[in-house]
Amino acid sequence: MSEFMLDPRLARDTQAIASLELCDVLLMNDARFPWLVLVPRVPGLVEICDLPAAQQATLWHEVNLAAQALRTVAPFDKLNLGALGNIVRQLHVHVVGRREGDAAWPGPVWGSGQAQPYAEASLASMIEALRATLEH
Amino acid sequence: MSEFMLDPRLARDTQAIASLELCDVLLMNDARFPWLVLVPRVPGLVEICDLPAAQQATLWHEVNLAAQALRTVAPFDKLNLGALGNIVRQLHVHVVGRREGDAAWPGPVWGSGQAQPYAEASLASMIEALRATLEH
Repeated sequence: MSEFMLDPRLARDTQAIASLELCDVLLMNDARFPWLVLVPRVPGLVEICDLPAAQQATLWHEVNLAAQALRTVAPFDKLNLGALGNIVRQLHVHVVGRREGDAAWPGPVWGSGQAQPYAEASLASMIEALRATLEH
Repeated sequence: MSEFMLDPRLARDTQAIASLELCDVLLMNDARFPWLVLVPRVPGLVEICDLPAAQQATLWHEVNLAAQALRTVAPFDKLNLGALGNIVRQLHVHVVGRREGDAAWPGPVWGSGQAQPYAEASLASMIEALRATLEH
């Protein structure tokens, strides 16, 4: 049986926030958008609809938790959820807080411009606040 | 109590396929992508995470059904799911079959170019095939 390994492109672009029952929760290192990515630790998983129903329920529960943490830490006007995977096939669900007038508004964040990495102190405080909220 | 009414922009861009327990299933009238949109018939609903857990479970079950119908009728390389709502706030979930090299590949379909309406006969046969599969 193969082991779960986070795709190296996801690992490169994100910071680990928490490990929930099913998913690793990652923060996209892009200060333009408060943006979490949830990755179920299931080796070889590509499509949500290939996940057994019970695990799907856990996934959506964890998406809710991530959305609530984001809402607490970085209030948004609209939540954007997406599971695309056209480039990175390992199943990952985007949970993005959108603000009217943000860098991609009203278009999607995916494929929009270049990521702007957080300043070191902002990244640390964002990670800490998200962890505190998720672990609450 | 206000009644559910489909947003007129969704109504304009889509064709009704089926009415499931929670959601109306609509076909985006864009021949570039096999693209369904699910709209829970809940008045005033904007965010998935504001839907009670039981209805969320029904929503994701119906997203699965829609994805399977799409997979049967118009096989795809990758499923794209999205709930954005930056422009149309009424909650709607996109279920899009993507093919390598399609008109937006590997970017997202949202905000990509102009819709190409189906020819009349193709639209009718697509609707019929999706209905037959969903009602199966």
